[in-house]
Amino acid sequence: MSWAEWFAGQRAAREAAGLQRVLRPRAAGDEAIDLANNDYLGLSGHPDVRRAAGEAALVWGAGAGASRLVTGTTTLHAELERELAGFTGRAAALVFSTGYHANLSVVTALADRDTVIVSDAHVHASLIDAARLSRAVIRVVPHNDVTAVRDALAAAGGRRALVLTESIFSVLGDAAPLAELAETCAAHAALLVVDEAHGLGVAGDGGRGLLHGLGLHDHPHVVMTATLSKSLGAMGGAVLGSAALIDHLVNRARPFIFDTGLAPAPAAGALAALRVLRGQPGLPSRIHERGAALADRLGVPRSAGAVLSVPMPSPRIALAAQARALAAGVRVGCFRPPSVPDGVSRLRITTHAGLDEMSWERAVGIVAAVAAEHRQLV
Amino acid sequence: MSWAEWFAGQRAAREAAGLQRVLRPRAAGDEAIDLANNDYLGLSGHPDVRRAAGEAALVWGAGAGASRLVTGTTTLHAELERELAGFTGRAAALVFSTGYHANLSVVTALADRDTVIVSDAHVHASLIDAARLSRAVIRVVPHNDVTAVRDALAAAGGRRALVLTESIFSVLGDAAPLAELAETCAAHAALLVVDEAHGLGVAGDGGRGLLHGLGLHDHPHVVMTATLSKSLGAMGGAVLGSAALIDHLVNRARPFIFDTGLAPAPAAGALAALRVLRGQPGLPSRIHERGAALADRLGVPRSAGAVLSVPMPSPRIALAAQARALAAGVRVGCFRPPSVPDGVSRLRITTHAGLDEMSWERAVGIVAAVAAEHRQLV
Ligand SMILES: Cc1ncc(COP(=O)(O)O)c(C=O)c1O
Ligand SMILES: Cc1ncc(COP(=O)(O)O)c(C=O)c1O
Repeated sequence: MSWAEWFAGQRAAREAAGLQRVLRPRAAGDEAIDLANNDYLGLSGHPDVRRAAGEAALVWGAGAGASRLVTGTTTLHAELERELAGFTGRAAALVFSTGYHANLSVVTALADRDTVIVSDAHVHASLIDAARLSRAVIRVVPHNDVTAVRDALAAAGGRRALVLTESIFSVLGDAAPLAELAETCAAHAALLVVDEAHGLGVAGDGGRGLLHGLGLHDHPHVVMTATLSKSLGAMGGAVLGSAALIDHLVNRARPFIFDTGLAPAPAAGALAALRVLRGQPGLPSRIHERGAALADRLGVPRSAGAVLSVPMPSPRIALAAQARALAAGVRVGCFRPPSVPDGVSRLRITTHAGLDEMSWERAVGIVAAVAAEHRQLV
Repeated sequence: MSWAEWFAGQRAAREAAGLQRVLRPRAAGDEAIDLANNDYLGLSGHPDVRRAAGEAALVWGAGAGASRLVTGTTTLHAELERELAGFTGRAAALVFSTGYHANLSVVTALADRDTVIVSDAHVHASLIDAARLSRAVIRVVPHNDVTAVRDALAAAGGRRALVLTESIFSVLGDAAPLAELAETCAAHAALLVVDEAHGLGVAGDGGRGLLHGLGLHDHPHVVMTATLSKSLGAMGGAVLGSAALIDHLVNRARPFIFDTGLAPAPAAGALAALRVLRGQPGLPSRIHERGAALADRLGVPRSAGAVLSVPMPSPRIALAAQARALAAGVRVGCFRPPSVPDGVSRLRITTHAGLDEMSWERAVGIVAAVAAEHRQLV
């Protein structure tokens, strides 16, 4: 079969299953209320954040120019790392171009053929790819099942072991049993890698993350990863942990070493967003208040974070609901296989602390009506 | 062994081998001439590029907010993709957060267990990681060896096959035999994936890349990848090819689907840089003139692009030479294992078309003196 035939066949299969996707660019003046993005605190568009990002581009130029280890590390990167570590209560931090790079880096730099990786069944694609790439022995355990983690670690036979989870899961919005997992890891000399992509800026005291909220920020068996692209409204990722861990990553993590440094504008934007968040420690609590009310209204479980998951009867109905919401002025996420951990298509609706009261109420009304109407279809 | 002991042991081994690395932040006012970065045309700091990046942050905010498939695609991304495709003579383009993501995406979305990947021994870490992640059968062939590629394809037994190479190699600066490779791929119904990270903006008519220079830009068996982080002075990556290929990536490439979109500032910066380059089609030729003169002066082979490789007797001497050049006011790259394809430590010096004549001449004098002095040490 030629490559052209293969592409055509793949596309036909997607179309038959209702899973074909296309990109739909939005314009700068777009008026729709966006409950699909992960800019939960509205910081991407905060005046201080826009200004800081814009000024960084003027001062530093559009790019870092080289790998962080060559000449791509600026004082801006160092400042951002210092403040991220301080905010989350960690000894050290390392900033990456994306959250994806952060996850690929920490796992592949720590694990090899002699390592056992125990991975929650619902972790993000970046952690799954990271585990595969590391060549470690991989044990996927049922979602949030601490006993299964314990058994897998016990069976690891003293090999170095990593446990992979998220603090607040990206699609279903539920939380991991982090205290129990940390204890289990400590008992087996394993490292717990917690992706706080949806926890930073959302959970914990002032948005310091769920690990901080649980007092696990200085636990010696816990490593944190995060993105700068969600609640901090910019782009990039981070790994937070001990100085020895960060030194190891600088020297060994291929997706860090062989990648151009994060551009100055998003680095400065994330730093400004972090400072706004420090100055408004009550901001994340609005996510939880609004989210709880919306979950109750939709009749779905409350979220540990900002993500509400609304199951739909089929991929096509999920798409239709999304289109209807957009026609009414609200963007919502539509997650279909392969972007869902359980094969169930759903609307993914994010709570936004940054929206004014009137816009939020209008959006809630539209989402509730559309969800109610479409969940009954088959 | 505990993780802390493992970190300590790894570090001790690096130190004993002279391979320990640390990050050295540079300040905004830094005066050193930078012949280490990949901003070959000086476009990162071009006034139009800075301004475009800064304005994009003000207009769009610091981040894209979500995955490209959710609400992270803006008209800016679409415009950039259109102009990149137009410039390189391709039907379509897709923009990624990094060049690393572009390479991971194209390979993992095309290859699986039923695919054979034939990879040049010198390809970049991102292509190596991509091949591993794809789970394809991997055949590494000697550097630039077309016969070995042909034999590996003949042995693939009709399975779908990809051949991976760079147009201009990132560390040694030599070019791949692209015309012969394309012909070989066509004869075996294989796809040739060419990473033009160091070719775009450098080789071909007006910087359209080496593929364009060889008339291979519309070859049906050739796919191009690129970064926006080198000659375009910003951040991000791209895949360029047929509309069917791009459609496939949008639907199947995990490092595209599960990653937040490229931030507006670097996207706008890359677009502005591309426009500057279109307006100054003679700019890349200065890379080649300056590079040839410098190579002759250093007594090393001329480069097909902007990268000159100067072998050093040991990692420690390479480091010492780098430090000496910096003390004299010039930053050069120092590549040591594992960042070199052949285990040989070297200075990596990039030709910069954007520098004024006086700075360039001063830098050349310093580099030549330092290299001469250190290459004799043992
Ligand atoms: C849980 C999780 N981890 C990592 C990532 C990747 O982060 P980034 O988009 O910054 O690459 C995402 C989303 O994009 C995510 O949801
Ligand atoms: C040949 C090659 N491909 C890909 C990349 C990755 O590009 P980026 O830095 O944009 O991730 C690089 C360098 O960083 C490179 O040299």
